[in-house]
Amino acid sequence: MKVFNYEEVKAKDAEGGAFHVTVRWLITKNMGANNFVMRLFEIEPGGYSPLHTHSWEHEVFILEGEGVVFDGEKSTPFASNNVVFVPPDERHQFKNTGMKTLKFLCFIPNIKD
Amino acid sequence: MKVFNYEEVKAKDAEGGAFHVTVRWLITKNMGANNFVMRLFEIEPGGYSPLHTHSWEHEVFILEGEGVVFDGEKSTPFASNNVVFVPPDERHQFKNTGMKTLKFLCFIPNIKD
Repeated sequence: MKVFNYEEVKAKDAEGGAFHVTVRWLITKNMGANNFVMRLFEIEPGGYSPLHTHSWEHEVFILEGEGVVFDGEKSTPFASNNVVFVPPDERHQFKNTGMKTLKFLCFIPNIKD
Repeated sequence: MKVFNYEEVKAKDAEGGAFHVTVRWLITKNMGANNFVMRLFEIEPGGYSPLHTHSWEHEVFILEGEGVVFDGEKSTPFASNNVVFVPPDERHQFKNTGMKTLKFLCFIPNIKD
């Protein structure tokens, strides 16, 4: 088994239209995770992920900060200790609406590989 | 999509030889999670999960508290902000060795259903 602090994994700039967003790939297929992967996102105040849609779900846990998830029409607020489930094919965008870094875990299936 | 605080989901006593452990099933197959599920465990000081083995992996993120993961021979310590990956078929037991409640997220594939 493996035990490590998330900060040991390098934060990389998120791609695909994200603004002021970094991602750490904490548990990956290369590590032996055959079914799904663990990522930790950090979004700076005013930052956001792209408004997009894909065929895989997101399972999200908000660790710190506050923000909204926008579906193209309405924004739903969230804060630390909140769970966000985005089913496959639903539009979504995460925005930091607070004054400090927003941190959340986001799990996705390995299907997209 | 769904957004909610984890405390809105009832904590149930964990089964199978766990001692002073509760579990909240936060994202489940019933909610539309086809590939993997999100659970939040709370272990009281002195409590532990069973020492066991199974064919599915664990992806764990430690939210609060401290403890060890025991593989039947050695104990590896962990604390908040630690990631624990337990591959399939590896023995493991989570123990709270601290003075306050240990809280962690634990994700498993839906394979076991």
